[in-house]
Amino acid sequence: MFDYKLLAALATVVEQGGFERAAQCLGLSQSAVSQRIKLLEMRVGQPVLVRGTPPQPTALGQRLLNHVQQVRLLEGDLQQQVPALDEDGRPERLRVALNADSLATWWLPAVGDFCRASGLLLELLVEDQAVGLKRMRAGEVAACLCASPRPVAGARALALGAMRYRALASPAFIARHLASGIDAARLARVPAIVFGPDDRLQQRYLAGLGYAGSFLHHLCPSSEGFVRMAEAGLGWGLIPEAQVAAQLADGRLRELLPGQAIDVPLYWHSWRLGGERLEQLTAHLRRQARHWLVAVQEG
Amino acid sequence: MFDYKLLAALATVVEQGGFERAAQCLGLSQSAVSQRIKLLEMRVGQPVLVRGTPPQPTALGQRLLNHVQQVRLLEGDLQQQVPALDEDGRPERLRVALNADSLATWWLPAVGDFCRASGLLLELLVEDQAVGLKRMRAGEVAACLCASPRPVAGARALALGAMRYRALASPAFIARHLASGIDAARLARVPAIVFGPDDRLQQRYLAGLGYAGSFLHHLCPSSEGFVRMAEAGLGWGLIPEAQVAAQLADGRLRELLPGQAIDVPLYWHSWRLGGERLEQLTAHLRRQARHWLVAVQEG
Repeated sequence: MFDYKLLAALATVVEQGGFERAAQCLGLSQSAVSQRIKLLEMRVGQPVLVRGTPPQPTALGQRLLNHVQQVRLLEGDLQQQVPALDEDGRPERLRVALNADSLATWWLPAVGDFCRASGLLLELLVEDQAVGLKRMRAGEVAACLCASPRPVAGARALALGAMRYRALASPAFIARHLASGIDAARLARVPAIVFGPDDRLQQRYLAGLGYAGSFLHHLCPSSEGFVRMAEAGLGWGLIPEAQVAAQLADGRLRELLPGQAIDVPLYWHSWRLGGERLEQLTAHLRRQARHWLVAVQEG
Repeated sequence: MFDYKLLAALATVVEQGGFERAAQCLGLSQSAVSQRIKLLEMRVGQPVLVRGTPPQPTALGQRLLNHVQQVRLLEGDLQQQVPALDEDGRPERLRVALNADSLATWWLPAVGDFCRASGLLLELLVEDQAVGLKRMRAGEVAACLCASPRPVAGARALALGAMRYRALASPAFIARHLASGIDAARLARVPAIVFGPDDRLQQRYLAGLGYAGSFLHHLCPSSEGFVRMAEAGLGWGLIPEAQVAAQLADGRLRELLPGQAIDVPLYWHSWRLGGERLEQLTAHLRRQARHWLVAVQEG
């Protein structure tokens, strides 16, 4: 069998983003961790890490990490029946990549019951879908929640439903900039809020109103910051309605054009051979999602 | 003078994370953008970009970006008096790196007035302090809000006050795990929530109670997700009190040990020669911060 002490050293260096932290985490000296990585590289005959800040796995290193992740998931299953097998006695964390808006809104309430009952620990990564799926492919995460329906090899994608986004702004912003009526050309000339280069929602919204050019915008890569920015009257933007129920109820935010919502479908990607715990979590999510997401219209 | 068409191409490729998007953004073909980068590299006699996904600036490329950022800030000042100077007529965005908790809570309400009055557009980057200051040094941002008091060369750091963090959990979590009393050894054995490898607050809290070992924890790199996770009863964690005033008032979250708050000081780093608009924003923040942050005890 493989020497898992060496593979665990590799995984820990990558997860912790450095040799010093990996050493702390493993209860080893830094030179012992270096030794293990070097020994691993001698055995496989190639570098497994690009030494940098932080260290990055090579292509071969990523294949090894993929394997470690799969083994850990399988160990997680076994451990529920035979807890003493795990040397350090700590439950493994399940690594999940998900989009910022799901994390800021429905995902944790939806999985809460399951995690409390099973004692599962989570390691969450906030990633847009391209990076989330890349991490799946590299075996760095056990599951990924994103808008892409296409699973990576060895995984499957489950349609959960859609998040409903509405174009919102503060009453002061509307009074200041849009008092004489709202149309696409006017909207393009007042500041919007955009999450980041991958956020095309505002563009889609303007396109739905017949406008295709560029538009003024702030950039704010934080779900919570996005809402704060809209509340502060700095711009308009598409916001999940579930995130701002209170603000819509008390009038801190208002919808620009009622009835023009955009639904973003969400898919849960998980490994086919990810083990029993991941299966159970997937089944739990399938049941829970309908309480939090809107049903997707089949095309 | 420098050829700013070439420098703008470099800046746009780095900001947009690729040649295709940079081309869209500049209204050029992708090959025209490549040509400009190649021409720039011929002139300076060295590569300015490492071609990858996304493209990264070389050390020389970063020095050029630093210069572009400074020039843009100075242009921003002039543009207020002579708007027609700017070819595309769009206001420049001010790039600011800040910590996730400030963005999720007080920062946007604090700068709101200033941005509305001046028409300033923001490009916000969520970074921990090491990366935020690295971006300052590389000239990628005009300002950075973080916990480090030490300015980079050419910049200054202004003490704004501190965010107050309290150790919180849901009543259900406390009833389930900590009904028989709360002490450090017990806390270390029930799940905590940790923002990421750089988040030492939970560790500091336990250390303050006399505990120094490892502890069970989830990892959740999102301010809003962190609160959702605590509300869902998955763990305890240190949360800015300003972020959860509603949850503390209605009892969704409770403090574990009243009176054991941790104050994290915040410093505003900005370029000395960043131009008038940055000066004004800095002065505005200095006045506003006291409404949102607690005063720091001088050591």
